[in-house]
Amino acid sequence: MEKVNINDKLSLFSDHWNPRIIGELNGQHVKLVKFKGEFVWHKHDNEDEMFYVLNGEFKMEFRDRTVHLKANEFLIIPKGTEHRPVADQEVSVMLFEPNTTINTGNAPGNLTQDKLETI
Amino acid sequence: MEKVNINDKLSLFSDHWNPRIIGELNGQHVKLVKFKGEFVWHKHDNEDEMFYVLNGEFKMEFRDRTVHLKANEFLIIPKGTEHRPVADQEVSVMLFEPNTTINTGNAPGNLTQDKLETI
Repeated sequence: MEKVNINDKLSLFSDHWNPRIIGELNGQHVKLVKFKGEFVWHKHDNEDEMFYVLNGEFKMEFRDRTVHLKANEFLIIPKGTEHRPVADQEVSVMLFEPNTTINTGNAPGNLTQDKLETI
Repeated sequence: MEKVNINDKLSLFSDHWNPRIIGELNGQHVKLVKFKGEFVWHKHDNEDEMFYVLNGEFKMEFRDRTVHLKANEFLIIPKGTEHRPVADQEVSVMLFEPNTTINTGNAPGNLTQDKLETI
């Protein structure tokens, strides 16, 4: 039971679209991830996801609209909702989601990360 | 599915030890709370809790040690662990915990909040 400093953890990696696990509670993972560029359209059939912006900004695209998110803002995406994060510049995000969640959901491919590092 | 701005939500209340619900996902609540002073010793038999500091600092006391937490740091407290938050100055904290969690756990009393407002 040690405290976690977000900035210390963010300094430990620099790649994009590769979430790291920084905490677990009640079957949920707390993760850090850095986004840059366009991700793939996908959905999660069984997991709601929360995106909390730490530094920078990005947009979350949905099929019918786009939500712009900046630091100290979060968005909860209900299971079954197609979405795609797009970041013009690098952004750091904290994720809160079930420990069963795969980043690319129903759209496995080159960006899929199914063995996450705990840092 | 609207984004949530943390600072906007923090501006909506000023009392202490009275968590507000600002999000729900996967049976978990996201809450905001402001601490000042000493809370009561308590534990949660069935819920792990996460305390993420937004502004300010506080200490989490355990029976055998104390963890000091400041902005951009978090601590996960496993179920069954006695703890007591103490804040010398006001601190704003985001909580992640199951939607069954009562703030005073096994120690109901004057500080118990069992009907939380959603903001």
